[in-house]
Amino acid sequence: MKHKKMLMVVCDGVSDRPVKQFDGLTPLQAARKPAMDAVARNGLSGTMDVIAPGVVPGSDTAHLALFGYDPYKVYTGRGSIEAAGAGIDLRKGDIAFRCNFATTDDGVNIIDRRAGRIRSGTSELAEAISGMKLEDVEVIFKEGSEHRAVLVFRGPGLDHRVSEVDPHIEGELLHSKAGSPEAEKTARLLNEFVRRSHEILSNHEVNLERQNAGLPPANIVLPRGAGSALAIESLSDRFGLRCAGIAGVTLVKGICRLLGMEVIEVPGATGGVDTDYLAKANAATGAIDEHDLVFLNVKAADVAGHDGDFRLKVQVVESIDMMLGSILKDLHEEVVVALLADHSTPVSVKDHSADPVPVSISGADSRVDAVRKYDEISAASGALGRIRGVDLLPIILGMANRSSEYGA
Amino acid sequence: MKHKKMLMVVCDGVSDRPVKQFDGLTPLQAARKPAMDAVARNGLSGTMDVIAPGVVPGSDTAHLALFGYDPYKVYTGRGSIEAAGAGIDLRKGDIAFRCNFATTDDGVNIIDRRAGRIRSGTSELAEAISGMKLEDVEVIFKEGSEHRAVLVFRGPGLDHRVSEVDPHIEGELLHSKAGSPEAEKTARLLNEFVRRSHEILSNHEVNLERQNAGLPPANIVLPRGAGSALAIESLSDRFGLRCAGIAGVTLVKGICRLLGMEVIEVPGATGGVDTDYLAKANAATGAIDEHDLVFLNVKAADVAGHDGDFRLKVQVVESIDMMLGSILKDLHEEVVVALLADHSTPVSVKDHSADPVPVSISGADSRVDAVRKYDEISAASGALGRIRGVDLLPIILGMANRSSEYGA
Repeated sequence: MKHKKMLMVVCDGVSDRPVKQFDGLTPLQAARKPAMDAVARNGLSGTMDVIAPGVVPGSDTAHLALFGYDPYKVYTGRGSIEAAGAGIDLRKGDIAFRCNFATTDDGVNIIDRRAGRIRSGTSELAEAISGMKLEDVEVIFKEGSEHRAVLVFRGPGLDHRVSEVDPHIEGELLHSKAGSPEAEKTARLLNEFVRRSHEILSNHEVNLERQNAGLPPANIVLPRGAGSALAIESLSDRFGLRCAGIAGVTLVKGICRLLGMEVIEVPGATGGVDTDYLAKANAATGAIDEHDLVFLNVKAADVAGHDGDFRLKVQVVESIDMMLGSILKDLHEEVVVALLADHSTPVSVKDHSADPVPVSISGADSRVDAVRKYDEISAASGALGRIRGVDLLPIILGMANRSSEYGA
Repeated sequence: MKHKKMLMVVCDGVSDRPVKQFDGLTPLQAARKPAMDAVARNGLSGTMDVIAPGVVPGSDTAHLALFGYDPYKVYTGRGSIEAAGAGIDLRKGDIAFRCNFATTDDGVNIIDRRAGRIRSGTSELAEAISGMKLEDVEVIFKEGSEHRAVLVFRGPGLDHRVSEVDPHIEGELLHSKAGSPEAEKTARLLNEFVRRSHEILSNHEVNLERQNAGLPPANIVLPRGAGSALAIESLSDRFGLRCAGIAGVTLVKGICRLLGMEVIEVPGATGGVDTDYLAKANAATGAIDEHDLVFLNVKAADVAGHDGDFRLKVQVVESIDMMLGSILKDLHEEVVVALLADHSTPVSVKDHSADPVPVSISGADSRVDAVRKYDEISAASGALGRIRGVDLLPIILGMANRSSEYGA
């Protein structure tokens, strides 16, 4: 029994609903996608409740499930995953937050939650904040893409159960409150951090230049999504797998790092619709020899779904298909290929939805059902049936002859 | 993302098995039912194990599951649900029983378990019993339809783990025994209650009149199905839903009340095959504006199944279809409609069976599979796959854009 290599291609948010104005088709049904359809035609298809029926998956909880981890057992909030994505190794007791650089006119009223989607100078701004001491707690702060950043509190007596300071709309800053007595110190320091961030950033050179140029200054930090460190076994410890992860967005890279994958940085992989698809294809093909499992996430379909742009989503599907075709042509046939989405982002909803996602898995000697197309409806008649996200990796491992026997 | 309204139509016991004498068809396959088929044709279908594969659902446990409550976690016996249906608010510590008025010749030997299906006078008989004191326990007793009634013990030190007094066939009364030391008082009072009911009812005016008319007297009460109060979160608290329930039978109304639904009383809704289908349709249509979810139960198909009457069951299906057609024509398209059964009641079995039930769900922008008929076999090839009852409401909520995201 030969162990096979495995490739998991996650088309983020590609799963959709039919749209009346486009002949009642979904973007997957409307697109020309010979490579995706080949995966369906040569293997097994089905639908998948990534978390559970009727549950809308976040990108973070979804990816945990897709790698076999029950998010209800291991998930501790997005902050910790963003921190991992930014390359910060969380320690036990640390509390992490996702942050935005934002614009305030008086330190309380937020007039732009993204500081005009600031694109440069954030590493200098982050440096000015990082290293700050709040009582006996150390502050680690790191910029992300555009207006995004990550904040970590490191010190004794912290707890993630604090209410938000980010109003999530333009308006007044909220005062963080403790959701439990153990979290009072964290709430107090969080409020203090926001005040100090405004003090430090207001007169920072980067912001003086922005104001001179008529741009909104990034003069306050809005943390949200508090999370403590995940205590999670790596894919290597759990399944004995050497894994590589390729993704454009920080969040997904964070999951890859948390699960002990080697994260392959691909120049031109942006996490947007302008990503370099062929560069990602080459990275995946290049990684398969040295790894047991190569995971590839393409974010662009999710972006098109959030924008409610059907035509763009169809284009993205066709671009992903070209990428997949390029990978498949270079792959020797002994690789098990799984094609799926992490959640639905219907263009009619412009957000994640609970609709199950199509999944197709093929490999050299895999069973082959009658499904000939990779889309939401065709896949549902396939021999995989309706599965759960947490069962996906075990199923792929089984098809790759990598599962171990239970009993004798 | 617009929240949609939801309509859940439960055709009680409509699900069946093929019957040889009728071309190997099920009643659903034999009936003309354009409205039901339209729900299947415009949406997704599948089969559903209402409790779990191979488990025969009761009407009470089935409906708990259909509203997303795991009956293995919340169910405490039918008595408490019947009490809610009769409008008695159970308190913590109360023990409730379903009862029959029955006929005995000597206070021990039961010669008619339903007292000739007594139809009038039961409210006077109930009044004579209710208010009785047994030691320090108060007795609340209320008549139901025909020979049916509900008994509640209210007082300290009660426990539902008592054996039955009802022999379930004509014959000698059983002596209730405690199934645990804590239930000894309850068993003692139950035996005493039965003895006292005979004492009180024997010479009651209603029974003297019945005897004069040659009818069997309702001269003893047979309690069964002891249950304690359900500790259950309402649909409003759990999902934030305003719900309306329409049903002919006490048991289903009881579930509606326990889950915090507004129970809409429909004159002419009998719970039998003679129910006023159009009155129920009108009630449903009228309730949709003021509620998020309207639940409609039609009992008649279950009655025909228990009677083993194929032709009657086909007629009932066609009547339900007319009712559904009347609702659908008045419904704006933004409503998610779910059509299902709570269990199978095959005419060949004349009782509930474990066969999974067909379910179809359609809505404005729902996915559409290839299923064109609502029946046991057609539905099984649909894109919903094989689901569990407890997942039904979450799936409907997802299709109605009412699920919340888990993660970020």
